Amino acid sequence: MAVAQMRLTRRALGALGSSELGFLRSSWPLKGSVRCKCLTRATINQKVLEAEYAVRGRLPTRAAAIQKELANGAKYPFTELVHCNIGNPQQVGQIPLSFNREVLALLTAPRLLEKAADLVKLGLISAEAAERAKEYSQKAAKIGAYTDSVGFQFVREEVCDFIERRDGNRPDVSQVFLTNGASEGVRLVMSALAATHLGGRVGIMAPIPQYPLYSALSTLMDCELVGYYLDEDNRWAVSIPALEAAHEEATKRGVVVRGLVVINPGNPSGNNLTPETLEKVVTFAHDKGLVLLADEVYQENILTTHPFKSMSSIVNEKQLDLEVASFHSLSKGFLGECGVRGGYCIFENFDPQVMEQFVKLKSIELCSNTVGQLSVGLMVRPPSADAAALYDEERQAVLDSLRNKAQILQKTLSALPGISLQEIGGAMYAFPQIKLPKAAIEAAEAQGIAPDEFYCMQALETTGLVVVPGSGFRQVEGTFHFRTTFLPTLEKMQRAMASFAKFHTDFMQRYA
Amino acid sequence: MAVAQMRLTRRALGALGSSELGFLRSSWPLKGSVRCKCLTRATINQKVLEAEYAVRGRLPTRAAAIQKELANGAKYPFTELVHCNIGNPQQVGQIPLSFNREVLALLTAPRLLEKAADLVKLGLISAEAAERAKEYSQKAAKIGAYTDSVGFQFVREEVCDFIERRDGNRPDVSQVFLTNGASEGVRLVMSALAATHLGGRVGIMAPIPQYPLYSALSTLMDCELVGYYLDEDNRWAVSIPALEAAHEEATKRGVVVRGLVVINPGNPSGNNLTPETLEKVVTFAHDKGLVLLADEVYQENILTTHPFKSMSSIVNEKQLDLEVASFHSLSKGFLGECGVRGGYCIFENFDPQVMEQFVKLKSIELCSNTVGQLSVGLMVRPPSADAAALYDEERQAVLDSLRNKAQILQKTLSALPGISLQEIGGAMYAFPQIKLPKAAIEAAEAQGIAPDEFYCMQALETTGLVVVPGSGFRQVEGTFHFRTTFLPTLEKMQRAMASFAKFHTDFMQRYA
Repeated sequence: MAVAQMRLTRRALGALGSSELGFLRSSWPLKGSVRCKCLTRATINQKVLEAEYAVRGRLPTRAAAIQKELANGAKYPFTELVHCNIGNPQQVGQIPLSFNREVLALLTAPRLLEKAADLVKLGLISAEAAERAKEYSQKAAKIGAYTDSVGFQFVREEVCDFIERRDGNRPDVSQVFLTNGASEGVRLVMSALAATHLGGRVGIMAPIPQYPLYSALSTLMDCELVGYYLDEDNRWAVSIPALEAAHEEATKRGVVVRGLVVINPGNPSGNNLTPETLEKVVTFAHDKGLVLLADEVYQENILTTHPFKSMSSIVNEKQLDLEVASFHSLSKGFLGECGVRGGYCIFENFDPQVMEQFVKLKSIELCSNTVGQLSVGLMVRPPSADAAALYDEERQAVLDSLRNKAQILQKTLSALPGISLQEIGGAMYAFPQIKLPKAAIEAAEAQGIAPDEFYCMQALETTGLVVVPGSGFRQVEGTFHFRTTFLPTLEKMQRAMASFAKFHTDFMQRYA
Repeated sequence: MAVAQMRLTRRALGALGSSELGFLRSSWPLKGSVRCKCLTRATINQKVLEAEYAVRGRLPTRAAAIQKELANGAKYPFTELVHCNIGNPQQVGQIPLSFNREVLALLTAPRLLEKAADLVKLGLISAEAAERAKEYSQKAAKIGAYTDSVGFQFVREEVCDFIERRDGNRPDVSQVFLTNGASEGVRLVMSALAATHLGGRVGIMAPIPQYPLYSALSTLMDCELVGYYLDEDNRWAVSIPALEAAHEEATKRGVVVRGLVVINPGNPSGNNLTPETLEKVVTFAHDKGLVLLADEVYQENILTTHPFKSMSSIVNEKQLDLEVASFHSLSKGFLGECGVRGGYCIFENFDPQVMEQFVKLKSIELCSNTVGQLSVGLMVRPPSADAAALYDEERQAVLDSLRNKAQILQKTLSALPGISLQEIGGAMYAFPQIKLPKAAIEAAEAQGIAPDEFYCMQALETTGLVVVPGSGFRQVEGTFHFRTTFLPTLEKMQRAMASFAKFHTDFMQRYA
């Protein structure tokens, strides 16, 4: 009886409106044998409830269930899943670079480092890896100790060297923070922007489609994500009129627009913006007094004829007093070291007193993980002696393979009626548009799910291909997309594309 | 002219009150050549500005400067600093456990793993380390790939095994999340509690003195830290009347008290609560309808005759429907793997719908680092074959050394007039009280700094000993403390204690 009553109470609680919560609080906790949870959907921080993170949403959950069923012998029209839902290269077969891992292994096991010369003789590691590990070790690169909040100083200097080689200007080491992946740096900057005392809700501009980290963090921090539409017909370029329009519309509503997120190369759009576009973006951010968040984690993944150009290099060339935070990561590029969780953030033109606040924020969670920090050093300072040849070979193999697979994807999808795909220019994604038939949209709506999710779910059930519905990234109302990576092995990609082409054709006929 | 004007504007901005910000916004960005920063102390999220994190505050900053000066040949009354300001064992000489590092090194470098048998023959690693690495590798423990948001399933099962051995009850694997240190888990739970729609500000109860993570996160999340005084005269035990009083006082003010943080063993108090006290704490949390945050990262660092007892084991024994989140970490205990950033959080009795929200929150930053995750597996499942003897020896050496150094600290400080120190019961800290002379307090106030910071700063300048003023952890008004670790090597601790005793005696005489 007491148990039944308790369950009922709990269920009832979940349905409570906010007007009923006053009562709840005054009688909390309920007396006698009935005690309900402190945390429920009704009483949890509602920003947490509202935050969305599609990349790990319903579709991958269903995919995980199918994987289990397959392992238990269940029958599907396919024998294995092909994961194109997440930019996780090593999960789907990419091999880590030998040099980097050798250095890390030596730094991890002090006894192996002592005997590094023997390992070199045995051909187990390169002499250069042994040297680099010794060098880092002499610089007090202890895996097991907290570092400075902002990371190892010598790694941050290596990052400065890298920027100087890449852009021609050298940041000061105090401007470089090492972070757990790029996400941590983004959270840092957004939490500083998320003021509540400026007479209006803070707005952060981000592209549509966008990587859902930005929408999730905006919701959690009670900011408004002010979306600006990328120009799909123009290879998903940033359009200045679209930026202007979004800014103006939000400002008119009283939103205090403070940040501009630009993801270049783009996720999920797979573009690589031209220098001309980037210059206009930078000028826009400057003129509107915004902090520019330059998400440049895909800077090594370039498929256009024009190379990658960093936004901070433009700011420096133009000598603009514009606050730019630029983010890079181990997880993408040719490293694909997602699991290590390493990255950096470079702050340009920030007020020194604000920099102090960033250092303090970083210190609250002590420091980012040391293996990730050291991996950043290895990323920005590749080998140049006996390890260089193998390194270049491994690196090139990854980049060539990505290029090949992008072409297969481009060719297959472009040939399908009802799909339009911009030329892929970078990153590791394509974001094709599907012109869903009216009957398919209605069928989806009857089931209460988004039409692109309906489509992707059927693709999963039929072909084993796991992709993410466009609705998780936002898109122009009434258009439908999905995001797919081109990371699985060549052979898998080819098989997946063949069965996907058949699925798509059948789907379009069924709902024609 | 324009530059001077700009500088003036920026400085003026820093002094702006919130009433002036409306003007600022309406004219933002300033026209012409004058452009001011978007982010300043005046316009940053004020919660960021208000958050305090003392462990890495002014004192360690000064210590870092002295370290540089010493390296450049500056003269001080000492030749090196002794860092007792932070629980960072490997920074001050603790050696990592061989077995754990060998397994990690093999998993880091796939080529070494292939040749593991050779390494065993050469005596470079143990056979058991090679076996464990192979086992983890077969369980798909890829260092370089994102894992499930909540971590490797097989490691989470090893955590369940560990809890079953420790407490006699086994959590379900779905209740275990792997985190970047314990801090990430704490942030997760606090962000769920930090609701703004419950008709009052959310309160989180935490001990005074407390580890400043809790106060910093409370401020950032706009919660109120409802402090309850630990009973200093009773070895810093949790006092139920103090809990009741703090809860009642806050509730009367309209605070919606939702969480109770208990740190056991204590940081900075160095206590190990008795089972009787813990039972009362658990009952209190249950009766008040609170979520219990059980910070148990020092559970291996026990110096009392009674062993550590987990709060969740009491909840289970009493069959209470009380939501408990308990946190553990690699960073403390005998591992001291602070830099690796690994830990776990176990959720007991949470609403399934709330668990879904925790999974989502965890997924926004993808997953915690894989080396940390695997290190958690190694922590909870020590070796049992050929690696066991060395492991036990290394483990015991660390624990014996900590016990010795705690005794030296206890003996030295207890003998000094004007210092009172409770018997150290666990963790890696002591929190002695200093009865500062009136003249010292006045001298500090004349300088505008807290009297205990004044004392600690002088200790630093005179002896090179780095400790943290009690004010950073909060303390009973009018009392003064400092927190010191007992982590440096035995020899360093002995030297530091000798020069500290002299400093203290001189200080007390000077201000008598």
